[in-house]
Amino acid sequence: MVNSDRFLNSLHELRTFGASGVGKGVVRPAYSDEDIAAREWLIAKIEQAGLQAHVDPVGSVWGLAEGPSLLLGSHTDSQPEGGWLDGALGAMAALEVARSARENGGPAVSVVSFQDEEGRFGVTTGSTVWSGKMSLAEADMLTDKTWVTFAEARAKMAYLAGDFVDPKQFTGFIEMHIEQGPWLEKSGDAIGVVTDIVGIRDMRVTFTGEQNHAGTTPMHLRKDAFQALNDFASRINAGFADVVTPSTVWTIGHVSLHPNASSIVPGKVTFSMQWRDGDSKRLAQMENIIRDAASSVAEGRGMGLEYGPLLGLEPVAMDMRLRSALCDSANVATPGKWREMPSGALHDATNVAVHMPVAMLFVPSINGISHAFAEDTDEADLVTGLEVLAGAVARLSN
Amino acid sequence: MVNSDRFLNSLHELRTFGASGVGKGVVRPAYSDEDIAAREWLIAKIEQAGLQAHVDPVGSVWGLAEGPSLLLGSHTDSQPEGGWLDGALGAMAALEVARSARENGGPAVSVVSFQDEEGRFGVTTGSTVWSGKMSLAEADMLTDKTWVTFAEARAKMAYLAGDFVDPKQFTGFIEMHIEQGPWLEKSGDAIGVVTDIVGIRDMRVTFTGEQNHAGTTPMHLRKDAFQALNDFASRINAGFADVVTPSTVWTIGHVSLHPNASSIVPGKVTFSMQWRDGDSKRLAQMENIIRDAASSVAEGRGMGLEYGPLLGLEPVAMDMRLRSALCDSANVATPGKWREMPSGALHDATNVAVHMPVAMLFVPSINGISHAFAEDTDEADLVTGLEVLAGAVARLSN
Repeated sequence: MVNSDRFLNSLHELRTFGASGVGKGVVRPAYSDEDIAAREWLIAKIEQAGLQAHVDPVGSVWGLAEGPSLLLGSHTDSQPEGGWLDGALGAMAALEVARSARENGGPAVSVVSFQDEEGRFGVTTGSTVWSGKMSLAEADMLTDKTWVTFAEARAKMAYLAGDFVDPKQFTGFIEMHIEQGPWLEKSGDAIGVVTDIVGIRDMRVTFTGEQNHAGTTPMHLRKDAFQALNDFASRINAGFADVVTPSTVWTIGHVSLHPNASSIVPGKVTFSMQWRDGDSKRLAQMENIIRDAASSVAEGRGMGLEYGPLLGLEPVAMDMRLRSALCDSANVATPGKWREMPSGALHDATNVAVHMPVAMLFVPSINGISHAFAEDTDEADLVTGLEVLAGAVARLSN
Repeated sequence: MVNSDRFLNSLHELRTFGASGVGKGVVRPAYSDEDIAAREWLIAKIEQAGLQAHVDPVGSVWGLAEGPSLLLGSHTDSQPEGGWLDGALGAMAALEVARSARENGGPAVSVVSFQDEEGRFGVTTGSTVWSGKMSLAEADMLTDKTWVTFAEARAKMAYLAGDFVDPKQFTGFIEMHIEQGPWLEKSGDAIGVVTDIVGIRDMRVTFTGEQNHAGTTPMHLRKDAFQALNDFASRINAGFADVVTPSTVWTIGHVSLHPNASSIVPGKVTFSMQWRDGDSKRLAQMENIIRDAASSVAEGRGMGLEYGPLLGLEPVAMDMRLRSALCDSANVATPGKWREMPSGALHDATNVAVHMPVAMLFVPSINGISHAFAEDTDEADLVTGLEVLAGAVARLSN
């Protein structure tokens, strides 16, 4: 029912907007000239497909079917150094499924490309505002790394913008995306049907000890902030062992040591502690282990301990009906070569879930690479993904 | 024989040059207007004491006795945020001992205040050049943090400068200094007679893993540079246990994580590894443990490993004759309240040892603090230090 060549052609055509010249990479951050040109191109494609094109106040592009419809899509903005697929894949798959459905008298399918999923201004900014989690007034005060405000950026698309789209017209949302991880490639599967989008906890931790001369301060009298961090990291690695699953992850990705000089015993360290899991209870268990370990380290070493605010994004379970349709469709399209799996990354679907049932499917990422020019997926897998999505839509309309 | 009030008065007078206004702190970095004014003041004091004042090409100030003499001194430049004592103590004690010796027909004593001990341009720059470890031409190319060259800085004192002083006229060098550590205060001793100035090894180590998405990359597939550092630091802490003495120290004081973002598995870490001990063999044993641990971590995790150049400063043993004179003198001045100890910090004496026998004595640092406005020592301890120094000089001339 879908036209896989037309789908692939549209992906390659979209890739020309902001083509990096390095592999298939693209440079198409939200509200860049390339992003806006790509969104104008998408509007034309939507109109050609017979859908009603619409741009909302933040620049998310919609293609609306009449009456109640299933919503498909993702985002067409990219990371500052991004791949050609990422969100573009889900947007082009949505376009192809909606277009084919109209051509073949299929079900009503609407499409969306959310704006600023990649977080030039925040995290999944366009769908966050549409979900109501953040007001437009709040979002307008967000700034990018060069202090451009969200208000200034979205004004560049004001000539296209209408009102926000009423979510009540949609019966559900399915987002196709690249996996951005290595699981599917490792298991040899072509499709991942997402069970849930994992929750995230993220906080800054600071140990304050005593800055001292690295020559004259004996080891037993030091209050060395680096050694405290080392102790802490070892304790949580050990403490998590009995609690985590193979898909649980935790990361100390940011470390700021003070004064950060080779001849000075560091007096202070601030570091990021981030952990992700699909189960809120496990996230809470891990938080307890983290706080216990940090307290033990601080007490044992006579050091100060401070926590920054805890950023918490709850896990989002995929809707069983939509998810079953994807599983059934995958079973037909690629029997024995698909699996169910959590999503370790955030997606627009997290926000859309505020309004309606959501589901997601993944295709493999070669070498697990994403957010880089080297991001890629075998075209056969892209087509399989399209077919699984189309099959699920057909099943849901029966 | 010495005049302790005159000694303390000269210390307080010197403190007015660059007084920070915070406690007794001073801001008198090498070649600052305050440093040069203090050196001109010192020249006048030297002339009043009946010594021949002399400034060498790098701005070290000398007070020369006729014929062969014992050299005493330290440095009068300070850290950017320094204490009133540090090197000033040794310079003023030298001045008082030399002055008293002349007044009382005592032995020939010369004095020196080396320039840039605190390393605006390097490390112990003035005495390094005088020792011949670095040529003046090489030193002239050194720059400070604002890219001023050593050549430009020392030109500010050119109107005072003569030739380098011939070291052959000196029979030995004794440097009095604050301890800059907590040992004397903890043990309740007033004087530390230095056994040796510890050697230093310092190198940068880099682990290169794989930068990845912190949500989608499972733990068992990560090559996380922070976790490699954590593993390494734990291994060397364990490995050193059987090798070190209570005065051995090691420090990871600088850590640079890349890209240093909470949502990205760090792909690279560069950190400083510094270790100090009075025994060259132990320094080599520790180096082996460090390299073995780093190799094991890199191999076990499939990561890259690179070392920067190894900075090596050999331990310097104090001269037994000078050291014995200090011990004998301490035994009289403060019986049962002195100890022998290594110096964990570098001093000008390290360089002077190239030319002649050297020794050092320490007075306690309150709370072990140095290189800070809060640096201080009880005045009774300062006077005890002066008396021990004077007593040692008297013994050596018998």
